[in-house]
Amino acid sequence: MRPAPNPAHAAAPYARFQTGRPVTTEVVVQRGAVRDPVRALAQGPEARRSPLFVLTDRTVGALYAHPFVERLRASGRTVHLLIMPDGEQAKSLTHYTRLVDAILQRGIDEASELVALGGGVVCNVTGMLAATLYRGVGLVHVPTTLMAQADAAISHKQALNGDHGKNLVGAYYAPRRVVVDVEVLGTLHQRRIRDGYAEIIKHGLAQDPSLTEALLDHVGDVHDLEVIEAMVRRTIDLKCAMMAQDPTERRAGMVLQYGHAIGHAVEWQSGFELLHGEAVAVGMRVAARIARAMGLADAAVEPLHQRVLDHYGLPTHVPHCLDADAVLAGLRHDKRARLVDGSRLALVAHPGALAMVDGEAAIPVPDAVIAEAVTRLRAPGARGTQWASRV
Amino acid sequence: MRPAPNPAHAAAPYARFQTGRPVTTEVVVQRGAVRDPVRALAQGPEARRSPLFVLTDRTVGALYAHPFVERLRASGRTVHLLIMPDGEQAKSLTHYTRLVDAILQRGIDEASELVALGGGVVCNVTGMLAATLYRGVGLVHVPTTLMAQADAAISHKQALNGDHGKNLVGAYYAPRRVVVDVEVLGTLHQRRIRDGYAEIIKHGLAQDPSLTEALLDHVGDVHDLEVIEAMVRRTIDLKCAMMAQDPTERRAGMVLQYGHAIGHAVEWQSGFELLHGEAVAVGMRVAARIARAMGLADAAVEPLHQRVLDHYGLPTHVPHCLDADAVLAGLRHDKRARLVDGSRLALVAHPGALAMVDGEAAIPVPDAVIAEAVTRLRAPGARGTQWASRV
Repeated sequence: MRPAPNPAHAAAPYARFQTGRPVTTEVVVQRGAVRDPVRALAQGPEARRSPLFVLTDRTVGALYAHPFVERLRASGRTVHLLIMPDGEQAKSLTHYTRLVDAILQRGIDEASELVALGGGVVCNVTGMLAATLYRGVGLVHVPTTLMAQADAAISHKQALNGDHGKNLVGAYYAPRRVVVDVEVLGTLHQRRIRDGYAEIIKHGLAQDPSLTEALLDHVGDVHDLEVIEAMVRRTIDLKCAMMAQDPTERRAGMVLQYGHAIGHAVEWQSGFELLHGEAVAVGMRVAARIARAMGLADAAVEPLHQRVLDHYGLPTHVPHCLDADAVLAGLRHDKRARLVDGSRLALVAHPGALAMVDGEAAIPVPDAVIAEAVTRLRAPGARGTQWASRV
Repeated sequence: MRPAPNPAHAAAPYARFQTGRPVTTEVVVQRGAVRDPVRALAQGPEARRSPLFVLTDRTVGALYAHPFVERLRASGRTVHLLIMPDGEQAKSLTHYTRLVDAILQRGIDEASELVALGGGVVCNVTGMLAATLYRGVGLVHVPTTLMAQADAAISHKQALNGDHGKNLVGAYYAPRRVVVDVEVLGTLHQRRIRDGYAEIIKHGLAQDPSLTEALLDHVGDVHDLEVIEAMVRRTIDLKCAMMAQDPTERRAGMVLQYGHAIGHAVEWQSGFELLHGEAVAVGMRVAARIARAMGLADAAVEPLHQRVLDHYGLPTHVPHCLDADAVLAGLRHDKRARLVDGSRLALVAHPGALAMVDGEAAIPVPDAVIAEAVTRLRAPGARGTQWASRV
């Protein structure tokens, strides 16, 4: 009664067909694009005749939505503005359903486009709406945080949260355009600028040693828009190259996951007290320790991590409230990384290059090794004080 | 204040990246696959270790789900069975959200697969769930109506209904396998068999004259499974060829839309009194009249439509309850077909070939021409009597 259902016994297909066409994402870097978005959106004639939907949240909406929408209307466009609540609550399926109804009620057509004006959450939710209305309408991301400009917006990963966890409902869907305007970062808190730098540092450490050098050479105001824009351009170059190779981030794209498995565990277990980039900073620092302990990294890697993260005032210690067991418990939620004993992690072998074992960048690390690294790097005293401003 | 936002003035991109990998759908035609699905599913080793989710509706569930699931469990699999309500109500976003929660609660992982056991609605809803859980998990369609076997299941179009219309929320997502077992058609009402034949006839009229000949040669029981299986195989061949060329059905794939614009209008305006295939039959008959009126079709086309649709006892008259205005009102809901005055329709020029105008198969037809054809083909007396059983 238990014939092995192995491929040799599988029923042969009668027919098969293959599909899949390339989609292109264009990234525009332009100061003032949020004040005057008409040229930056670069919509075709069909899209210009159709209603345009701008989605934002309360905070970004209050700062930038009014001029953004008015300028588009002055150019003769029909524009609907939809404002979602701030933060993760906007990513619920209930809220998504409400937005679907609101968009359909206002009248969307197949040539309509959705524009996300905001941070990662706004980009994710708008991305899911664009992916699923009429089986896919045009999507433009206008990221307003450094984190989203350097990372979340330049991605095909769109997501919502289920009741049972973060990003459990989602799709791969390509924005037609990503419009990056660093001017809007002027209103961002310094802590959020540092947070975005964590993803830039990730690309330096895992992919490009000359970017790490440039990051270390920068001394001065963390809000310097000239410097930020140059760093964002370099990050976009590096990320686009990876995305073209591996949009689902499972192979070469493991670079993009660097620091994220342990980072997510720390973020989740600390109850989101750390921002995403801060948690990734901790994750990278722990990964550097693990790589050294496993004999996979050269001696320069760990001090380089410490130096560049310190330079940007990012945390390099696991918060004191979390012990090794808590971090391991957090990792158990990571279905992609998790093994029976241990997790698959991206590790850096030398500056700008991931370690490879048997041709794989997702390296199995035993729980004991993770626990040792976490224990060693746990903040000694009261938590939350080790990342005072430095730059 | 109104600079033309034309492409010449559009902001140039700083970077671009292109992605998109081919996905393959395998179609298996196998008698008895619903009684013993283990071999037909042909799951890989990873998927076999993960929980499997079987989704069905009440009617199909009562007939086939129990042995289907038990056989899989006997092979050592963990199988969860989820039963949705019968009919279109299962396609609401509310119901979709409930299913997402149910699946996450039972514990899905990235290698899990969802199996749709049912007709078009079950395939559509399960397709949307597979497209969006973990940004895409494995999907297998096991269609249990002739309509779904010949059409809905062999498609990447997954969909839900918004409050504002049918299929407004959806995605293109490829099933890994489609398992066609004509044995289950034995329990289907004769009217539903005829309904499925309408889509087979569509492929004959628009794509393959030899299929139309074969359809006309068949005399005997409409439930003859030998004949049905042969016709389904030919339809799968024709549809797979189209899907490989044009999965979104906008260019060469207009063949798949033949009869559907007017068919949907009739289906919608008659309050779903006609089944989908019945409405498509009416849509094709009206399209043949239109093609002749516009001088695009040769003299053989209209009588051939009448003959083959009559042969299968399918309706060839617009229901008496609908006049030309009602059908035109129905067409106004069709955002893809609709023009300011008229609609873009696929038309047949001669048996097995679509008419082409300026290299396009979506031909603009003025409302007056549509109205004349509808008026001519409106059922003369009481509605609903003209498609008594014939085969």
